[in-house]
Amino acid sequence: MASTLHDVARLAGVSIKTVSNVINDYPHIRPATKARVEQAIADLGYTPNLTARSLRSGRTGAIALAVPELALSYFAELAAAVIEAADEAGVVVLVEQTGGDRDRELELLRSPRLQMTDGLIFSALGMGQDDAEHLERPYPLVLLGERIFDAPVDHVTMRNVEAARAATEYLLASGRRRIAVVGAHPGEVIGSAGLRLRGYREALEAAGVPYDDSIISETTTWHRSNGARGMRDLLDRGVTFDAVFGLNDTLALGAMRVLQEAGIRVPEDVAVMGFDGLDEAQYSIPSLTTVDPGQRWIARTAVATLLERIRRTDAAGEPRLLLADFHIAERESAPSEAMIGA
Amino acid sequence: MASTLHDVARLAGVSIKTVSNVINDYPHIRPATKARVEQAIADLGYTPNLTARSLRSGRTGAIALAVPELALSYFAELAAAVIEAADEAGVVVLVEQTGGDRDRELELLRSPRLQMTDGLIFSALGMGQDDAEHLERPYPLVLLGERIFDAPVDHVTMRNVEAARAATEYLLASGRRRIAVVGAHPGEVIGSAGLRLRGYREALEAAGVPYDDSIISETTTWHRSNGARGMRDLLDRGVTFDAVFGLNDTLALGAMRVLQEAGIRVPEDVAVMGFDGLDEAQYSIPSLTTVDPGQRWIARTAVATLLERIRRTDAAGEPRLLLADFHIAERESAPSEAMIGA
Repeated sequence: MASTLHDVARLAGVSIKTVSNVINDYPHIRPATKARVEQAIADLGYTPNLTARSLRSGRTGAIALAVPELALSYFAELAAAVIEAADEAGVVVLVEQTGGDRDRELELLRSPRLQMTDGLIFSALGMGQDDAEHLERPYPLVLLGERIFDAPVDHVTMRNVEAARAATEYLLASGRRRIAVVGAHPGEVIGSAGLRLRGYREALEAAGVPYDDSIISETTTWHRSNGARGMRDLLDRGVTFDAVFGLNDTLALGAMRVLQEAGIRVPEDVAVMGFDGLDEAQYSIPSLTTVDPGQRWIARTAVATLLERIRRTDAAGEPRLLLADFHIAERESAPSEAMIGA
Repeated sequence: MASTLHDVARLAGVSIKTVSNVINDYPHIRPATKARVEQAIADLGYTPNLTARSLRSGRTGAIALAVPELALSYFAELAAAVIEAADEAGVVVLVEQTGGDRDRELELLRSPRLQMTDGLIFSALGMGQDDAEHLERPYPLVLLGERIFDAPVDHVTMRNVEAARAATEYLLASGRRRIAVVGAHPGEVIGSAGLRLRGYREALEAAGVPYDDSIISETTTWHRSNGARGMRDLLDRGVTFDAVFGLNDTLALGAMRVLQEAGIRVPEDVAVMGFDGLDEAQYSIPSLTTVDPGQRWIARTAVATLLERIRRTDAAGEPRLLLADFHIAERESAPSEAMIGA
């Protein structure tokens, strides 16, 4: 039998009203009384009815996080950091997987489920710029990702173009000239793939290196298996290249595996660069040089921004665009010095 | 301005009572009426107040999943599979990270937050057998993991002893005799580490191979970095071994990286075996031979079992122990044939 408010009041030797005040965290309760009630709650394993409580306070103490899928390591590490930051603020996280599908993303934005939470951190992948209006919802929302810009909501994201440009410049500075790309999305202008390819092209152009379609491999999703397939595709074309830029780490790791299966040495024959800064990239053979786009900062900033919006719905303020700093983590798959005679 | 029940009723041309019936999914509503109401809800972006709704129905449509941390790939892949299975049943998932800490696990079990959900899938790591009584809670709970057995709740888990024994037998059959272990927990009897080490010892004993403490490396947590440190520790000891059994895949991957850094060939000099069947293990160099302990089945079975308990709280029935089948995924790091002359 679950215990009741009455049981707690009796055990603590206080009125029901006092127990209720402690549960609802009202001010002006004597510390000794508060401690006695909390001890009684713990002893009885009493669980106050939060549903009733949230009806009164208008807050649920929960936020939602929507990501394409946790099986993509980037989103698993992002979710871990979001849950950690929320936990520090005493808030729980409801995690939704959308599969990166536009219809499911739109459905989620309209879903009555969101009433269970005080706000949403939304990593859009299927929706595009034309869907910006759908982000105007009657609840606090922080947007992640790079599919939609200038929407009427706070947006926390990475510097995709600059970071990808820096990664490409790094490869060029180490003496590479034929830099293949794995994970491109044909025709995409914004989105991670579109922006990172733009950064790549800007770096090539600045260095006077021609852009060559024949060393660009396209894959819609970004799992390790896609990177492996993308590299097999490049090898089948019979084109030459001395570096590969995987548009994320898992693509780069899949591609690096296939290169080595084919007897191609990394980095001697082909240097490999990733993007994400996953933990995994430190342990591959060779370890993966990558761009750390500031994911941890993004997660913590998204939580802080959302909680601030939840607290001060009255003074809404202008939507903000918050951009993370990035840095290149130099490892074995792409050393920074030119390799003479390689 | 958020729209109201009145707005929906007006747009759909029906009574408020009818809108309410559609939202609450009552039977005997004409399909055409239902469609009209749903269209009006979509057009207006109306979100019914679920908090009020759950007070009436006594259900929230949400379940909680507690795992040690999503940054451990095993739990990320588990959470992805749980969320997918729950989504198919129209249920959302609130994910909690406990850090594998006993106090935080116990606190979670008593937490009022759980009132926000209809039940809990609980992957315990810090709690032990003596804590079994704490699992007796006034809500549906399915236990995962191998820290507690014979508790008064449904338990879905893997066959740790048998699977680890099979992995060790596999290495012995391929001609290895000095099988080092990375990730052992000193003195642990149950728990993943304790049970897997028991399976390892059983296989050695059956083959007449002596157990040797000097090739057992201990690490409390199971990240890639722990596997790397464990292997450095073994190499520093100056002991000889011809195989390594990482008690999970990330340990094995960290260890494999350090072996190769030290110029030791995998599998020619030392074979490496993991445990978990992570996606990542297919792409390492060399690819990792591992035990797939049936994680996907565990996730789906846990969700189905919990939802069944939520539906029929009246007919509780005996707690069940549900065990997944396992299989060995043979890859490059430990081929099944003996390597002559290696």
